[in-house]
Amino acid sequence: MDLLRVDTVDAARGKLEEHCSSIMPRIENVSLHDAIGRVLAQNIISKENIPPYRRSIMDGYAVRSRDIGAAGDMVPSFLKISGEVLLGTDSSDLFLEAGQCIYVPTGGYVPEGADAVVMVEYCEPFGSGMLAVSKSASAGENIVQIGEDVAAGDVLLARGRRLRPQDIGVLAAVGVTEVPVCVPWRVTVISTGDELVRPEETPGPGQIRDINSFTVTARSMTEGLKVVRTVSVRDDDAEIAAVLKASKADSDVIVMSGGSSQGKKDMTADLIGKAADCGVLTHGIAAKPGKPTITGFDNESATLFIGLPGHPAAALIVYEQLLIRLWRSMTGQSPEITIKAMVKTNIPSAPGRRTFQLVTLRDGEMPEAVPVFARSGMISPVSLADGFFEMEENCEGVKNGDIVEVHLWK
Amino acid sequence: MDLLRVDTVDAARGKLEEHCSSIMPRIENVSLHDAIGRVLAQNIISKENIPPYRRSIMDGYAVRSRDIGAAGDMVPSFLKISGEVLLGTDSSDLFLEAGQCIYVPTGGYVPEGADAVVMVEYCEPFGSGMLAVSKSASAGENIVQIGEDVAAGDVLLARGRRLRPQDIGVLAAVGVTEVPVCVPWRVTVISTGDELVRPEETPGPGQIRDINSFTVTARSMTEGLKVVRTVSVRDDDAEIAAVLKASKADSDVIVMSGGSSQGKKDMTADLIGKAADCGVLTHGIAAKPGKPTITGFDNESATLFIGLPGHPAAALIVYEQLLIRLWRSMTGQSPEITIKAMVKTNIPSAPGRRTFQLVTLRDGEMPEAVPVFARSGMISPVSLADGFFEMEENCEGVKNGDIVEVHLWK
Repeated sequence: MDLLRVDTVDAARGKLEEHCSSIMPRIENVSLHDAIGRVLAQNIISKENIPPYRRSIMDGYAVRSRDIGAAGDMVPSFLKISGEVLLGTDSSDLFLEAGQCIYVPTGGYVPEGADAVVMVEYCEPFGSGMLAVSKSASAGENIVQIGEDVAAGDVLLARGRRLRPQDIGVLAAVGVTEVPVCVPWRVTVISTGDELVRPEETPGPGQIRDINSFTVTARSMTEGLKVVRTVSVRDDDAEIAAVLKASKADSDVIVMSGGSSQGKKDMTADLIGKAADCGVLTHGIAAKPGKPTITGFDNESATLFIGLPGHPAAALIVYEQLLIRLWRSMTGQSPEITIKAMVKTNIPSAPGRRTFQLVTLRDGEMPEAVPVFARSGMISPVSLADGFFEMEENCEGVKNGDIVEVHLWK
Repeated sequence: MDLLRVDTVDAARGKLEEHCSSIMPRIENVSLHDAIGRVLAQNIISKENIPPYRRSIMDGYAVRSRDIGAAGDMVPSFLKISGEVLLGTDSSDLFLEAGQCIYVPTGGYVPEGADAVVMVEYCEPFGSGMLAVSKSASAGENIVQIGEDVAAGDVLLARGRRLRPQDIGVLAAVGVTEVPVCVPWRVTVISTGDELVRPEETPGPGQIRDINSFTVTARSMTEGLKVVRTVSVRDDDAEIAAVLKASKADSDVIVMSGGSSQGKKDMTADLIGKAADCGVLTHGIAAKPGKPTITGFDNESATLFIGLPGHPAAALIVYEQLLIRLWRSMTGQSPEITIKAMVKTNIPSAPGRRTFQLVTLRDGEMPEAVPVFARSGMISPVSLADGFFEMEENCEGVKNGDIVEVHLWK
């Protein structure tokens, strides 16, 4: 038993980080279509220039800008049409001599000798292969230079990036079709409690439907973690110990979600203490909600244990603060974008504890954070909330007019 | 051919909405574990009260508050311990008489007769079954009332909600295990262009790797749409027409992504005009970027067609503005949360056109929106950007100090 190891949230996370180098995510290569939403495990450096040739951004005529320096509406310049670039074909043998022009479609190769492209709107073909140009052009106009989009050697995407659609586009552009991404942690979610019934059952007297194993499983999925199993076990030490032992074999993380009564907490701590060869690391965190949180680590199997508080809001917040933030930091992800919002009321904090306040956002010139109060055990206010903000341990609460940073629920 | 049907962005979306009632998403039931990220198709109304009984939020003793009205540190009140509530067992036959108390764990049933729970910290058992209570309690203290979390008949979650982890928790709590969600549109993505090569190939002279079919496929996936196929076809009218015809059979949406040259645009409009029995609805939108956009609708097969601009930034923005927003509006989703940010520089708009400006966000007291300029055809600035803001058709640009609403890339 490791009682009274109450830690701050940061200290609890620090202890996990210390022990967790053995579950540093491995790297796997996936195809481009499977890479969306995955976390990049290595920097992506381009081996190529994009575009690899000077590219026109318009349908127009490649010209030498000095040839049309005097061109205007009233007095056009005349050039000889000496060729045409076709998309998808090799035009690299085309060369533009003085006094000539060559038709180039959008995206097409701009021939050597040319230094600008004039839009078709300003060009009028004549008979006998001549073109009247009614506008001058500066050097480089309507041309994307070699490597202007991506230069060979550039770090295009950095390790830790969670890949979005346009990142997939960048990878496609430079020909990276095997994408090195982090192998997601394998998570086992165990809910314990004789009073818990499955959602499809009608709770009898003294019973309640299991909520936390569903929210924790779903939150793992939205973060891209791999839930290997979600199981319910009765409050039986031997039975739970057996599930913990079996799950160590194929899980990086084992999450236990039980009740918040003292008996349940002691039981969870005891079970984690026995299953984890490093024992219990943290027994209670100085957080509101979230106090009855237990962590542990097993070196032999490289498994991290978290015993979550029983209350749904507390369970989700603690899972977010310990496990999800640990995953993000170990994979090198940037902090998420938060929303600055104003509170229009005084909101107390819990002195000496990190306080997490649920809020909804209301639109305004500056968004307003409206507190949502979830009494212990309630789930509907958690669902109503858009997210939460944090008050530091030494903070005495926020006052009407204060600005807070709202973390949106994911 | 339906040339010159240039519409505003809103008009183009309006025309699609008019024609699209026949692709109103159908409803399917999925299990709780499969419901995460799906869009709720019907309001969820609770049939039950949660909690179904008065529930204690603490480990403590159920009491009659009037019995301990005078209790304090110095002069405790004494009560007779008349029972204990066990989690998961039927305690509904317990009744609290005056002068008695009953132990109740966190989450446990509060017996009839009691109107408050005193935390164990303020209670000290004596010999002979007596308890000393050193703190008074107000009526209702530490008790969650029947239906206080969820009242029977409440609309818990409204149609159009994209389900998050805590929403899954609410559904579990009220016993909804078959969740009515919108069947995602089935999307075919076709990229056309003789100049396009697959990402794993090295582009020859005049060739370029296909980007848009990857970004559009990925963006469809992040929105929860179902991509039934992503195919590349050469610039051959008959070949493309055959793919369009075959895809109509199993797609709600067919997205064509080709080049931005005039020849390509005409070809796309022509093909959509022939494949769609309502013909081309919009031929060009007054947007920057995004002008060369074509839409159409086929009533017989109930298929929506979108021909996207060739430039990667334009393709993604148009896909977002037309297709994704249409999906969100038809499924009843609320507008996404945007981020208010200040621009610290003057940014011009394109007069008469809806202008979409890519930006990155920089942290500050008020977040700063830093413009990212993507010259036509570039992809790396699109990936660099955190999102974009809109300037209306009649807007003359934004000035240093203006506040804009940034839509984050999804």
